[in-house]
Amino acid sequence: MSANTEVAAERVAVLSRQLCAGSPTTTSLTVDSKAMREFMTHDNRQLRDAIFEFLKDDLYRPNLYQGLMDFREQTLQRLKKFVGQRFFSVRDYTSDPRRFIAALECLMYADYSLAIKAGVHFTLCGGTIAKLGTAYHHNKYLPGVDDLSLPGCFGMTELGHGSNVMGIETTAVYDANTREFVIHTPNDEASKYWIGGSGQHGKICTVFAQLTVNGQWQGPHVFVVRLRDDAGRLMPGVRIQDQGPKMGLNGVDNGRIWFDHVRVPREDMLDAFASVSPEGVYSSSIPSVSARFGTVVGGLTTGRVLIASGGIDGAKLALTIAVRYSCARTQFGDRPIMEYVTQQARLLPPLAQTYAYHFALGHLKSLVAAKKASDAKAIHVLSSGLKAAATWGRVEAMQDCRECCGGMGFLAVNKIGPLMTDMNVDVTFEGDNTVMMQQVARALLEERAAARGTAPATPAPGALAALGGTACARTLGGLLAYREAALVSQVADDMAAAATRADGAAAKAAASAAAFDRNLDLVVQVGWASMEKFCYANFLKEVERAPPSLQPALAALARLYAVSRLQRAAAFYLAAGALSRADMAALRAAAAELYGQLTAGGPRCAAVALCDGFGVPDHLLQAPIAFDWRKI
Amino acid sequence: MSANTEVAAERVAVLSRQLCAGSPTTTSLTVDSKAMREFMTHDNRQLRDAIFEFLKDDLYRPNLYQGLMDFREQTLQRLKKFVGQRFFSVRDYTSDPRRFIAALECLMYADYSLAIKAGVHFTLCGGTIAKLGTAYHHNKYLPGVDDLSLPGCFGMTELGHGSNVMGIETTAVYDANTREFVIHTPNDEASKYWIGGSGQHGKICTVFAQLTVNGQWQGPHVFVVRLRDDAGRLMPGVRIQDQGPKMGLNGVDNGRIWFDHVRVPREDMLDAFASVSPEGVYSSSIPSVSARFGTVVGGLTTGRVLIASGGIDGAKLALTIAVRYSCARTQFGDRPIMEYVTQQARLLPPLAQTYAYHFALGHLKSLVAAKKASDAKAIHVLSSGLKAAATWGRVEAMQDCRECCGGMGFLAVNKIGPLMTDMNVDVTFEGDNTVMMQQVARALLEERAAARGTAPATPAPGALAALGGTACARTLGGLLAYREAALVSQVADDMAAAATRADGAAAKAAASAAAFDRNLDLVVQVGWASMEKFCYANFLKEVERAPPSLQPALAALARLYAVSRLQRAAAFYLAAGALSRADMAALRAAAAELYGQLTAGGPRCAAVALCDGFGVPDHLLQAPIAFDWRKI
Repeated sequence: MSANTEVAAERVAVLSRQLCAGSPTTTSLTVDSKAMREFMTHDNRQLRDAIFEFLKDDLYRPNLYQGLMDFREQTLQRLKKFVGQRFFSVRDYTSDPRRFIAALECLMYADYSLAIKAGVHFTLCGGTIAKLGTAYHHNKYLPGVDDLSLPGCFGMTELGHGSNVMGIETTAVYDANTREFVIHTPNDEASKYWIGGSGQHGKICTVFAQLTVNGQWQGPHVFVVRLRDDAGRLMPGVRIQDQGPKMGLNGVDNGRIWFDHVRVPREDMLDAFASVSPEGVYSSSIPSVSARFGTVVGGLTTGRVLIASGGIDGAKLALTIAVRYSCARTQFGDRPIMEYVTQQARLLPPLAQTYAYHFALGHLKSLVAAKKASDAKAIHVLSSGLKAAATWGRVEAMQDCRECCGGMGFLAVNKIGPLMTDMNVDVTFEGDNTVMMQQVARALLEERAAARGTAPATPAPGALAALGGTACARTLGGLLAYREAALVSQVADDMAAAATRADGAAAKAAASAAAFDRNLDLVVQVGWASMEKFCYANFLKEVERAPPSLQPALAALARLYAVSRLQRAAAFYLAAGALSRADMAALRAAAAELYGQLTAGGPRCAAVALCDGFGVPDHLLQAPIAFDWRKI
Repeated sequence: MSANTEVAAERVAVLSRQLCAGSPTTTSLTVDSKAMREFMTHDNRQLRDAIFEFLKDDLYRPNLYQGLMDFREQTLQRLKKFVGQRFFSVRDYTSDPRRFIAALECLMYADYSLAIKAGVHFTLCGGTIAKLGTAYHHNKYLPGVDDLSLPGCFGMTELGHGSNVMGIETTAVYDANTREFVIHTPNDEASKYWIGGSGQHGKICTVFAQLTVNGQWQGPHVFVVRLRDDAGRLMPGVRIQDQGPKMGLNGVDNGRIWFDHVRVPREDMLDAFASVSPEGVYSSSIPSVSARFGTVVGGLTTGRVLIASGGIDGAKLALTIAVRYSCARTQFGDRPIMEYVTQQARLLPPLAQTYAYHFALGHLKSLVAAKKASDAKAIHVLSSGLKAAATWGRVEAMQDCRECCGGMGFLAVNKIGPLMTDMNVDVTFEGDNTVMMQQVARALLEERAAARGTAPATPAPGALAALGGTACARTLGGLLAYREAALVSQVADDMAAAATRADGAAAKAAASAAAFDRNLDLVVQVGWASMEKFCYANFLKEVERAPPSLQPALAALARLYAVSRLQRAAAFYLAAGALSRADMAALRAAAAELYGQLTAGGPRCAAVALCDGFGVPDHLLQAPIAFDWRKI
């Protein structure tokens, strides 16, 4: 990510001249929402439009009266009908990842259960077969994935091992006599847990198991295991417990799976990077267990991209509904409730943030599509950090949207409430957010160690106050970058000091690890700071790339993003001496001025137009309060 | 509240000696959870135990497979069976409010839909008849409330008028010829909206309407209107639209009601404070429309007490589950996940906060029970502020609990997820939280104006750092009090300055009101600061009142409450110069030390015992992960 960061820093410098040229206009902003939507849609415009059009089908209209089992059946039927359209193929996972991602992204606008059921089937199961399998597996399974005759599951997580994938206990022992692997669950904690799609419908599963060949342990490998036969009956040795109702996402049938010495043909181990000969000789292009493990779990990246994307798109939906309603809803006379600063402060920073995340995700998708080996680390870090930031940001944005709509936000027909319930899972699945932020911090700590980095210089306070709240992009970007560097430095120094006090390599490593754990609160903040620095720099690049007519509004949003994140981290900056009390007042004034620009004009204000720029079609927006609250 | 505040300040002074005597012990704390439960249960112990025992009935076991209509029917049957036990009477609303509140508080442990359906029926409808009605109404309606033969609704809110109750448009015109009131909905925005219990089951409704007698408008009054006959058929002129599915709380049948010139006998106006003679002469013991309005809506206080209580009890449930699980759940070896500071920082401050709110609510209930006219303002302010703080606190605490349990927190059987979905409504109903916090701030601004208050002196920074993180209660309480005073001062000064710049009384009032609105972000912070100051001072009184064996743990929780709230408001204190960078480090160290004390001992640590002190019976805790996650 550091190369991109440097590029971004250059752009900041270029843009700072432009953005510093005088205080922002106090007149309202005008936004052509159609042009904005075109600018925002980076890829596969026609495909997205076709899927949105298809989703007009009555089958995709919400029904919140039904019980759980009916909802699951409805979700299966929805997926079947979608799959029947052949908008894309699971083979696009490797050949055209942006098309693959675009098609799946569209589904969350109809229903998150549908999106997740499709995601598990196509991305986690199908994608794993596409990426870790070879021609044999592609021919045997991918057609059945594409037409849903083989509904797929992803058997990685175990009851006892969620974040600790390396610690899974399911075993796969090669039996050279029969040329089969024996897949076995040695104890209850090793049962596969939370396996989406396995409760009722799944027929195949990509099972992660510790491989032993000739008595030699080779680490986690992946096997395609048949769960149910064509008629849906469980296969011998497979036991599945339906996990029943969840907080939301009840269209997905999660299950828990035990394998009792289930025999799998030798050919059904996914062998793109490692294989076992009929005679029982193991070979791999990757020598070490830990490096092989990295390859096995590397396939989770696309899943994280989709979860981040879902969080961002969910925020778009909720914001479009809440901002439109707030600008139209009056009480105590003719005053729209959007005129209250409490409403503005809850809706507008998330609007800016959602634009920032949308653009950051666009950058991430372009890295994924470019498939350069040199980008692997940047992709890992950005997909981890953005998944965490986007989903935590969504939790907060949706709760604020729901509250800003009052009781209307709680009414299911207005969509925000049920959506936030369904999506609540996204902060912990596909990698717990706290763990995801640690991944970002670890990468930065490694980079700093490699570069023998030192503590950054503290920016002089007063810069924001001196500019009367109109600080330039260079100053804002510099402050965001400073926080990342200062926090990394603080954690690194504490780890180094702890190691210094210990004797011997093992004790030093343990002391350093303990210091990392002691600072986990800061470590998570490192992740946030890193995402903020990246997203702001990347946002400025998008402002520059945008058609001139869109630049003023995008620049205002970028500024609001930076201002609101600086306000959020105010305690850090004040304690560090990088911002003063006067700077804080300048930030508050800058935010108020931006709120004014974005909301001037009531129902025709820039904030509404910017939400329309997200391009959610009316038939997928659905919520009556997004149209005319008086006619609900 | 100021009198109580002074008392509290004295206590702080007394306790500060005790708490300042040396740094807190670094050994782990021991807590007798049975003794704690006894200390925590301020009233009606036997009644609570009897209701908890009754709730062992299978009818009260969750069923999350069923559809919406079945759930509503189940909720009605649950309420009927509960009512059949006659644990209390609606007449307790006025004669023994603590018994009334205690009985209803117990229901949320079984199901929040049941609690809210009961709350609307007994508190909002029944309580309004008990308080604003006289013997005629009590005899005619209360027996039917007690035995649920007359399921009741509360017809206050209208589509166009939620927070603005004074602005409701439903009319009640007295017709002296027939000695009836004509209740009418003049337009769609005046339809009664969000009326709990009206969608399917309600038979009577306390309807708020603007009264006109002899062409003279008298402001909002309350009428008991029959919605459905004994067989459940709608009465003539009454139109009800079922509001359908909600985000949660789907056991409650909300509806929208229109009245088309519905005639109500003269006697059915609730006439405790105002009446209309048969001939059409209006008379009231309260002369002004606005004072009468205060009386009419004053009955909402008990509802707010119950909503606050629900939020606090909901947090108890979620914390008991999440803390127990976190102390038992291991991953990456034998280390319980509670050992991670990220887990501690998310679960332990809410634990301390829940104790603080529980005690504050106990104080509020004692004020309500004492029924002193001189406490009216304190009750209004505390019920408003605590409702907002407790429910916003609950949102955050439950989300953290849910995330700290990973996917387990999303599984319905573990209770946290469905509960947070059902309860999400509490931040906006019975008064939107933002509006509630404004009520607190307005009261403080009035007090300050009456006392001709000036800006408070800023505490000198460095006090926390000098004490090495073991600052005394006096210092902590002083800092919390300072924030309230400084923020009130800031808003008041801005309002005064704006008024000074305007000419004429009307313009001055308008300028002052505009300044208030401009500072709404600070106004909400005033509400928070005020609740924190009160809750901490009140907590210290409880520490003093507690049996000596419980004092160390309670003192640690009180300290953690103060420390975590100071950390939360760090930017304010740093900007004001009341805390330094070294103070912030001292707060972080103090928090880490408290985390260590509370979590030492794994599954037998103080944090678990303190959760057990909440006294949630196992059969209402239900969640398997609260017992043995390996055996889920």
